[in-house]
Amino acid sequence: MKEITHVKINPDMTINELLKEFRYGAGFGGKQLAKAADIYEAMLKDEEATVFCGFAGALIPGGMRQVIIDMLEWGFIDVFVCTGAILTHDLIEAFGFHHYHGSAHVDDRELAKKNLNRIYNVLLPTSAYEKLEEEVQGILQDVKTESLCTADFLHEFGLRVPNENSILGKCARKDIPIFCPALVDSVLGFQIWMARQGRSTTIDAFDDQKRMLDIAHDSKKRGALIIGGGVPKHFIALAMQVTSKGLDYAIQITMDRPEPGGVSGASLEEAKSWKKVDPASEQVVDVICDATIALPLLISSMESRFQGNYRTHKKFERYF
Amino acid sequence: MKEITHVKINPDMTINELLKEFRYGAGFGGKQLAKAADIYEAMLKDEEATVFCGFAGALIPGGMRQVIIDMLEWGFIDVFVCTGAILTHDLIEAFGFHHYHGSAHVDDRELAKKNLNRIYNVLLPTSAYEKLEEEVQGILQDVKTESLCTADFLHEFGLRVPNENSILGKCARKDIPIFCPALVDSVLGFQIWMARQGRSTTIDAFDDQKRMLDIAHDSKKRGALIIGGGVPKHFIALAMQVTSKGLDYAIQITMDRPEPGGVSGASLEEAKSWKKVDPASEQVVDVICDATIALPLLISSMESRFQGNYRTHKKFERYF
Amino acid sequence: MKEITHVKINPDMTINELLKEFRYGAGFGGKQLAKAADIYEAMLKDEEATVFCGFAGALIPGGMRQVIIDMLEWGFIDVFVCTGAILTHDLIEAFGFHHYHGSAHVDDRELAKKNLNRIYNVLLPTSAYEKLEEEVQGILQDVKTESLCTADFLHEFGLRVPNENSILGKCARKDIPIFCPALVDSVLGFQIWMARQGRSTTIDAFDDQKRMLDIAHDSKKRGALIIGGGVPKHFIALAMQVTSKGLDYAIQITMDRPEPGGVSGASLEEAKSWKKVDPASEQVVDVICDATIALPLLISSMESRFQGNYRTHKKFERYF
Amino acid sequence: MKEITHVKINPDMTINELLKEFRYGAGFGGKQLAKAADIYEAMLKDEEATVFCGFAGALIPGGMRQVIIDMLEWGFIDVFVCTGAILTHDLIEAFGFHHYHGSAHVDDRELAKKNLNRIYNVLLPTSAYEKLEEEVQGILQDVKTESLCTADFLHEFGLRVPNENSILGKCARKDIPIFCPALVDSVLGFQIWMARQGRSTTIDAFDDQKRMLDIAHDSKKRGALIIGGGVPKHFIALAMQVTSKGLDYAIQITMDRPEPGGVSGASLEEAKSWKKVDPASEQVVDVICDATIALPLLISSMESRFQGNYRTHKKFERYF
Repeated sequence: MKEITHVKINPDMTINELLKEFRYGAGFGGKQLAKAADIYEAMLKDEEATVFCGFAGALIPGGMRQVIIDMLEWGFIDVFVCTGAILTHDLIEAFGFHHYHGSAHVDDRELAKKNLNRIYNVLLPTSAYEKLEEEVQGILQDVKTESLCTADFLHEFGLRVPNENSILGKCARKDIPIFCPALVDSVLGFQIWMARQGRSTTIDAFDDQKRMLDIAHDSKKRGALIIGGGVPKHFIALAMQVTSKGLDYAIQITMDRPEPGGVSGASLEEAKSWKKVDPASEQVVDVICDATIALPLLISSMESRFQGNYRTHKKFERYF
Repeated sequence: MKEITHVKINPDMTINELLKEFRYGAGFGGKQLAKAADIYEAMLKDEEATVFCGFAGALIPGGMRQVIIDMLEWGFIDVFVCTGAILTHDLIEAFGFHHYHGSAHVDDRELAKKNLNRIYNVLLPTSAYEKLEEEVQGILQDVKTESLCTADFLHEFGLRVPNENSILGKCARKDIPIFCPALVDSVLGFQIWMARQGRSTTIDAFDDQKRMLDIAHDSKKRGALIIGGGVPKHFIALAMQVTSKGLDYAIQITMDRPEPGGVSGASLEEAKSWKKVDPASEQVVDVICDATIALPLLISSMESRFQGNYRTHKKFERYF
Repeated sequence: MKEITHVKINPDMTINELLKEFRYGAGFGGKQLAKAADIYEAMLKDEEATVFCGFAGALIPGGMRQVIIDMLEWGFIDVFVCTGAILTHDLIEAFGFHHYHGSAHVDDRELAKKNLNRIYNVLLPTSAYEKLEEEVQGILQDVKTESLCTADFLHEFGLRVPNENSILGKCARKDIPIFCPALVDSVLGFQIWMARQGRSTTIDAFDDQKRMLDIAHDSKKRGALIIGGGVPKHFIALAMQVTSKGLDYAIQITMDRPEPGGVSGASLEEAKSWKKVDPASEQVVDVICDATIALPLLISSMESRFQGNYRTHKKFERYF
Repeated sequence: MKEITHVKINPDMTINELLKEFRYGAGFGGKQLAKAADIYEAMLKDEEATVFCGFAGALIPGGMRQVIIDMLEWGFIDVFVCTGAILTHDLIEAFGFHHYHGSAHVDDRELAKKNLNRIYNVLLPTSAYEKLEEEVQGILQDVKTESLCTADFLHEFGLRVPNENSILGKCARKDIPIFCPALVDSVLGFQIWMARQGRSTTIDAFDDQKRMLDIAHDSKKRGALIIGGGVPKHFIALAMQVTSKGLDYAIQITMDRPEPGGVSGASLEEAKSWKKVDPASEQVVDVICDATIALPLLISSMESRFQGNYRTHKKFERYF
């Protein structure tokens, strides 16, 4: 048995130093976070491993947009899976609008009068959605949507996002596959439906599953970093289940709890019984923490560990 | 101000008596649950109101299948919105397979060897999925999928589920619209993709949004009972936002918390700022409780209040 | 393996019928609650078992006062362990003051101006504390506090609470030992300190531990129902640890989670490693639920099962 | 309104840089943590403010011992309030024993056989408690306990802890008052009771309250950092309530939630209605995060901000 050595901190300690200190110094959440960093590092350094990242929750309003863009830039993501809200919020920022600091202790009826939409302690003016419509419709005039699966559609759309510094724009320009299985359930999805009216076009979500399964199947080893659960978590896990190859590396960061049986709170240990995670793997960890705290810690630590020699994301050439 | 009168219980007290006793007797969760029952009753008795119900989470493995079927039978649901997992689990039971009692304190590697998949304290044998495939493929041979939206596809599929006592079968036979925006992200979705190969068929999720918006728009008043959050919660709320008519009545039952910013844990009060819920409505309540406890309490209480004079669900005739 | 049979509800179903239905019908929280009822019944029917009940949290503001008094009346509690807040809130009601229904969505600065103290959705006027002081000081003039342990002091105090229908009054009159290890950390504790000034009196908390250990040691079998965790949970568990006799029966109802390492959220399974709970016992369950929902369900169910033939609580005659 | 500027990270970023980046870059938990750092800095730099720190939960098994000792060393704590478990775990380490890394996914019955006590993912051998007894009894022979309040007793005890690098030893040697209102509810409390047998000695917890109230009353301004809630949180808040001076600065770090009404999860906003927190104060924040993550971040950030020019803790000379 290894002793808990107690976390030693010092002035101007780096994040990576702290996460290394957590390895043997901390129990509970600190320990789990240290383990997450070590597993993510191992996954990224394993040349055989494909790295699937799932993002759910209001991460862009929560200020994580640049962190995610850095992850894409530095090769920390091979396959990007997200909710429609992630893309919608990303586009709002890409088109020059913003989310704002607010407070959770407010009268929401007053906010409604001011057309300020609240997400816990963050605000988004309704006007941003109106502008979004204009911009999105403009792009959609230009995107062929005949017989496209969602991933291909998002690739085409992303290439046309003027601001390269967007998640969608970055994925498209770097040929990183982007899956959004519930795209229809978003403001962006609504805009797509609007644009399509009267045109003989089709976006077919089912073909995405084939593509995801192909990638999963063809990967020698497989790792996942799952933020917030939801459809992205389930979509990644389902691909592992269907292809009968459990994840070799798995990290999840969530604040949901396992007892009520929902997928977002389900432990990755439980996922071993399903073989969504390889039952023999020790490289598995649940981090119970707000992602706006845990994700920057994790990614800054990765940057320190790679020191500029970043990874090149896997190419799935035949897909694009 | 009204006094907390303290809950009085007695032997053989009915559930409805307890929920009425909670009205003035209890604070905290008990009070919220009593309020939920009163709001649901008001929503069901308001002839102008359309009742949207959203279901997420492993409610069928959790034993809620019959309760949901009762809700459909008794007119407690006008529009059914759910995850693909709800439908998959429902079909597993419809085809004669079962979920089983297990424990959360087990070695998941042992379960994996036995091909038993765990969902907290519930188990599902892998063999159920194999049988599911056979049955689903059989039905899918018979369903036209040309230019169907998901809701229409599920209606056609549901009519062919042999066991009428299934959620999908019941919705179809009663012409209750069933929306599953993330159907692709499920074992059922995977089966659909498999069946479709080589056939020129299309299921188009985007048309579902139009249908949902039409229903929302045409409803004089609108109520929602949301279990577990996720895509179903978001899809219902989005329809309210886009049609600029907030919910007049709203209940959510969840164990997720609001602080990390995810949609499942977001308070319905927050939804007022978005006008997803009518800012002026007092008929709004968050119940922080495991749905396998709260839902049977709520529905049994409704049964007592309606005493057999059940509601007839709204018909959206032009949709089918 | 036993099938999940799916919960069947009907109009005017009793609470006990539902909890029995949950046994095989439900997974997740419903199942855990059914197990809790079965374990509590077994514990109460086991003549060798001493039943320790721990209460933490604002249960009285939450409307649970009469339920707890019923538990004391019907022999469902042999040893009562609680926080100082439980006693303080009980006395506020015993002296004729009340807690009130409020809302969690308010401006707390406005409440402060109105001298209304908020506990989530419950309010307590500051004036109640002022009146409490008067009444408590009156009683304290009459209580000898020389060399009393807290349990003896509370017994003496309780005998003088005019309203027999109080938790403290009921414990005292029925000779049920009442432990409050952190009494000093409460408004009642503050009143005791005030009354004592200038008198050569002592209340010695350490002697309570001896008494608790004696009771634990002398019990052939031991069961616990723990609501909310905190000091009462720890005090009961510590007595088991120190006397080297783990609980034969154990139920906890909490909303706290285990991952951050705190005692309130720690699972009872974990308590087996400490032998606070007998490692061999199967009669152990965690219920993750708001106590204002779970406790009335549990106790009403017990009433139905005992049908008037209530248990006589254990007497620890030498202690009083 | 201020924009969410999105968190920018870089290799070898320091913790303090990240927390400053969180100020405008992050929403949700990241934002709350940044605010906590700014409030703690303001509290520590306000010469009129007394800094009360409350510690609950298994922070020592969680590896936070050195961080807390640093806080004491650098003047970040004027008044130390904790649970008996904090002191017990501290002494176990002070006497040369250790906590160990374990896993939450284990068979607790196996651990019981090996005499390994589990706290989530941390283990403590039973032998440590046996050794603790020996050491504690040795010290207790030497401590006069006549008419001591708990704080004085702990001061005397702490002076005799051989290892200066302990929390209790550090508090005693630096004359930092240490309050432990529920000391009796701990293994250390049990040892004290054992040592006292046959001696005419008394430790009187009620006198601690007077001392706490005197400190609270005499402080021009008052700040609190509360980790984990429980009795320490309540004891600090009660002192503010009774002396009618709300906290000018208040931070809490917890994973408990407010809806069930317990004190640990209650928001500090709610505390304004009680005037436990000054209703007019803007320097108030709840951080929903595992303390083993949030506390090292917060304290490392403080170190960077003070750059060696540490604060001298307030002296309450008349108390010792």
